Amino acid sequence: MTIPSFILASGSPRRKQLLKQIGLDFSIIPSNVDEDFSIDLPPEAFTEHWAREKAKTVASDHPDSLIVGADTVVVFDGKILGKPKDKKDSFSMLQSLSGHTHEVITGVSFFSLDHNIDITFNERTFVSFIALSDIDINNYIKTYNPLDKAGSYGIQDGFSVYIHRINGCYYNVMGLPLSSFYTRLKLIAPLVQIS
Amino acid sequence: MTIPSFILASGSPRRKQLLKQIGLDFSIIPSNVDEDFSIDLPPEAFTEHWAREKAKTVASDHPDSLIVGADTVVVFDGKILGKPKDKKDSFSMLQSLSGHTHEVITGVSFFSLDHNIDITFNERTFVSFIALSDIDINNYIKTYNPLDKAGSYGIQDGFSVYIHRINGCYYNVMGLPLSSFYTRLKLIAPLVQIS
Repeated sequence: MTIPSFILASGSPRRKQLLKQIGLDFSIIPSNVDEDFSIDLPPEAFTEHWAREKAKTVASDHPDSLIVGADTVVVFDGKILGKPKDKKDSFSMLQSLSGHTHEVITGVSFFSLDHNIDITFNERTFVSFIALSDIDINNYIKTYNPLDKAGSYGIQDGFSVYIHRINGCYYNVMGLPLSSFYTRLKLIAPLVQIS
Repeated sequence: MTIPSFILASGSPRRKQLLKQIGLDFSIIPSNVDEDFSIDLPPEAFTEHWAREKAKTVASDHPDSLIVGADTVVVFDGKILGKPKDKKDSFSMLQSLSGHTHEVITGVSFFSLDHNIDITFNERTFVSFIALSDIDINNYIKTYNPLDKAGSYGIQDGFSVYIHRINGCYYNVMGLPLSSFYTRLKLIAPLVQIS
């Protein structure tokens, strides 16, 4: 599936990898939008809001393109966890998630000014960790430096041994719910003349 | 974690990739055991039987090593699906799984003659496909030639867009339930003098 001028408005290497995995042709133009965690929205609306802001910002410079924005957060105990501020924050996030089930929510937004597209949705996946020792956590942080990841872990790296089960879309946890993304993209595609 | 002479008794490139992902040092010696699907066992016992047979076969030539064997099957509608015989079989497997939820069961066996280790377990993951068109299925088979995969799909390749959700361990579907594998390996490790 080739879409003329399909742009991923994200600098995440995981999202780039996922779009490559499903064989899409795309360019990358990260938005310079900074998430403001003080905004008072429930997690689902929070991710949708920022996914759409990211897509909209890039769309203003590329009105004829189809832009996809995405925003992923971890939710535990009613609190939204974004990327950790530093290693100490990383440790405390992983310690709180240890032995429990949390939610990962990704908001996804398709935006195109010229094609009149403005579609946003979110998807939720439950992730269960086994109990981690302090040594496990410190070793993981030292080896993988997970400061660029919501919740401070990568489901696809060495952390995978601590993830006992998930319920929902695996790729959603990596930053993009591939199946829902693809299903919607196929519906949108005729509007942007997919070749 | 380094285990002296830890051997993966499987030629599966996915299992090799998973053990690398968690940083294990290991050698690969595929067993030459051929699964006999006519053997009358429930799916869980079937995978455990063949995982253990594979490990045992390699262990007989390497009595001082710790061997891991694994066997993965797809179960749908009470029937065990192994690897497809040919492209036609591949098509009919994917057509039957389309729009439904099936089970993936992996049996895992740790075996060491000198260290007196003989531990086998199985893990189950539920996988839900969206509805696939005949064109989707034919395109997938043409591009990915999934003849070496139980159930005729790879959860980690271009098929990922058709997998709506899973319930259980993702890596189990790739051929090795990493979290359960690692938890048991840590219990076994002292017996084989892990350094």
